[in-house]
Amino acid sequence: MSSKKEIVIAFDLYGTILSTESISKELGHLFGQEKGASIAQEWRKYQLEYTWRLNSMDKYEHFSGLTRKSLKHALTEASVSFDESVLDNLLSQYDRLALFDDVPDLFPHLSRSQSDSSNMTITPVIFSNGTFDMVSSSLANSPGLSPHADLFKKIVVVEPVRRYKPHPEVYRFLCKEVGKGNKGEEGDVWLVSGNPFDIVGAKSQGLKTIWVDRKGAGWTDELVEGHGGMPDVMVRGLNEVVGQVEKYLEAE
Amino acid sequence: MSSKKEIVIAFDLYGTILSTESISKELGHLFGQEKGASIAQEWRKYQLEYTWRLNSMDKYEHFSGLTRKSLKHALTEASVSFDESVLDNLLSQYDRLALFDDVPDLFPHLSRSQSDSSNMTITPVIFSNGTFDMVSSSLANSPGLSPHADLFKKIVVVEPVRRYKPHPEVYRFLCKEVGKGNKGEEGDVWLVSGNPFDIVGAKSQGLKTIWVDRKGAGWTDELVEGHGGMPDVMVRGLNEVVGQVEKYLEAE
Repeated sequence: MSSKKEIVIAFDLYGTILSTESISKELGHLFGQEKGASIAQEWRKYQLEYTWRLNSMDKYEHFSGLTRKSLKHALTEASVSFDESVLDNLLSQYDRLALFDDVPDLFPHLSRSQSDSSNMTITPVIFSNGTFDMVSSSLANSPGLSPHADLFKKIVVVEPVRRYKPHPEVYRFLCKEVGKGNKGEEGDVWLVSGNPFDIVGAKSQGLKTIWVDRKGAGWTDELVEGHGGMPDVMVRGLNEVVGQVEKYLEAE
Repeated sequence: MSSKKEIVIAFDLYGTILSTESISKELGHLFGQEKGASIAQEWRKYQLEYTWRLNSMDKYEHFSGLTRKSLKHALTEASVSFDESVLDNLLSQYDRLALFDDVPDLFPHLSRSQSDSSNMTITPVIFSNGTFDMVSSSLANSPGLSPHADLFKKIVVVEPVRRYKPHPEVYRFLCKEVGKGNKGEEGDVWLVSGNPFDIVGAKSQGLKTIWVDRKGAGWTDELVEGHGGMPDVMVRGLNEVVGQVEKYLEAE
């Protein structure tokens, strides 16, 4: 009766562990602070829009290409002048993004949860829209993340599925890749994301979900009504994640 | 040899023929001009986001419900206080939206194109993400549009397909509904829209496309590279549409 409960925590990467704030600052240096901030915001908006439009159109192309195109879209719309070298420079910064302030405190929790003698094991993985190359490179080169990259036991990307979040198939693929592919096992997989659309998508496939609400603004997404359209747990930072999962499971 | 070429022009409704400016103004009265404009913008953003996310999740629900939910999302995020009656009031205005300034001059062109003796006939239809009820009501009650509603020979909505633009199936459904369902006939259907995502979606299914660029900002969408990701024709207002279609076909 003492078999350990095996839990997987899948962390979204860009915007959840790694902050794109440094790219926003670089845009500010290039085009002025206000315009830079607005370009960064529109860039992110189009990056997501492109993934959803491709899903809608039954098409797929790599996230690195989409990231470049959406940046070009935002720059053109802002009527600033730029050339390919500006795009290259901005995109290369994806390799060395900084952690959000609350992330360093996550690492000792992840480390402890893999070695202690509690009645559960926690396996942390990365789960991203990014390509395998992008994500590997971010893990290897991000100054704050690379010393802890080994804590994450697997990189799962949507690339083999050729669909983006929140397509049902990408969450089923995640479950399968982490050894939770059988019916009912998806509830042992926790998705941690700062993106409400990702939370709602994972929830609809039976995963548990933790939404990172760094601004403390509260849940505002209305797409799916009731509990099924909301995260199981909300945290203000990733430092709270492991404790909250343990607390949730103890209460079950 | 003198059989007439039969062309269908499918007009998107909300944001292409009808302007939501009046709702934006009403939001300004309720919450102050600046906040109102920002809520209107976020409302539209979430309305589209919800359609693409549902497409991505292989789900569907009616556009009227999504429109309400996305409004609620925008209001909650703006931290303004509101109750269901505010939602009811704002949504009821969808029934009596005003035309864009360039639309009245479209009507005589549509009228002429259906009666003259040129070597083509043009059949105008409406093609919308809205429900049949919403669209019928808008056509019947919009003060500027209702006297001319008869010019549009059909209302085609995505409702029976249970997918939103730019899903391939909705464009194929449009072609079928207007009698252009055979392979190769989709090129006789022109989509007129102010929304780049709609243009790119229709183009990918072989329809001809006209993008309404009222601001004269130029095409900035980068999702699909090259000619396949751009409109066949760009206009500054709907008054130019019929003339541009005729010109395009004469040059073919």
